[in-house]
Amino acid sequence: MSEIRRIGVTQRWSDIVVHNGTAHFVEVADEPQQNVRGQVAQILTQIDGRLATIGSNRTRLLQVLIYLADLSDGPILNELWDSWVPQGNAPARACVQAGLSPGYRVEMVVTAAADA
Amino acid sequence: MSEIRRIGVTQRWSDIVVHNGTAHFVEVADEPQQNVRGQVAQILTQIDGRLATIGSNRTRLLQVLIYLADLSDGPILNELWDSWVPQGNAPARACVQAGLSPGYRVEMVVTAAADA
Amino acid sequence: MSEIRRIGVTQRWSDIVVHNGTAHFVEVADEPQQNVRGQVAQILTQIDGRLATIGSNRTRLLQVLIYLADLSDGPILNELWDSWVPQGNAPARACVQAGLSPGYRVEMVVTAAADA
Repeated sequence: MSEIRRIGVTQRWSDIVVHNGTAHFVEVADEPQQNVRGQVAQILTQIDGRLATIGSNRTRLLQVLIYLADLSDGPILNELWDSWVPQGNAPARACVQAGLSPGYRVEMVVTAAADA
Repeated sequence: MSEIRRIGVTQRWSDIVVHNGTAHFVEVADEPQQNVRGQVAQILTQIDGRLATIGSNRTRLLQVLIYLADLSDGPILNELWDSWVPQGNAPARACVQAGLSPGYRVEMVVTAAADA
Repeated sequence: MSEIRRIGVTQRWSDIVVHNGTAHFVEVADEPQQNVRGQVAQILTQIDGRLATIGSNRTRLLQVLIYLADLSDGPILNELWDSWVPQGNAPARACVQAGLSPGYRVEMVVTAAADA
């Protein structure tokens, strides 16, 4: 039986789940009252924090699925994203428009290597 | 070459695929004529069945991506979900609104540990 | 530290990322001016190419998440998909409608075994 490590466990979800050297987590902005630029910046910072918790970092991203409430926010997302991703270490990335809870502009589903 | 185990294989999809200790599967309600409450309950039962097939169980969920046809069904989803997830073992979870085939109210993409 | 292999790395994404024997990649049609039939055919060919790059092939697919700009394109998708997937080797598959960038009719998020 391979170990599963869960951090930040609530009844509904865990903040991060690690299994077989791979981490799974989902981020929305902690402060959805911010505009899309603020929410993207906040999520990217939250991802850094999650990865630090397990001794990983943003050079170890494998795949990121991005849901935008409005695809026209793509240029703002990409501006912040491109300056955040470490050169030479970009993950596979999908970005589509989907319905998010009121106020939320972006949600990211992250898969990352759990070591660094 | 690492083994891939496929169960319930059709020409279009497999009911469950296991590789490197991780299981991948997707569930919609077997009976889409049911309302959203019935569909959610059915999917959660179907997940239990899939996991049992590979000797796993709902304490071993890693990540669940939930697509709702209507985000306003979120409270019903959460009510059933919260009482189904074993305390202390919640997976990472995303939930967004997307277009589903006629009649379907919810679809879940599940990643789980393949042992228990 | 487990190795991560990235191929086709840009500042925004990598064409394919391999870690722990699993490959992650996302495909949209290289020529979005094609109609949905052309785009699906092109994506399936692109997937073959990506898998060949890492010494894998379409019998090693684990999970495919398909985003259609219009669910009514499902029959065309399924026709091409069913004749492309090798019998007995279908992956887990989800297919939902989501908003894609202008002109794009389909986007696929692929998880595959990295050896063959």
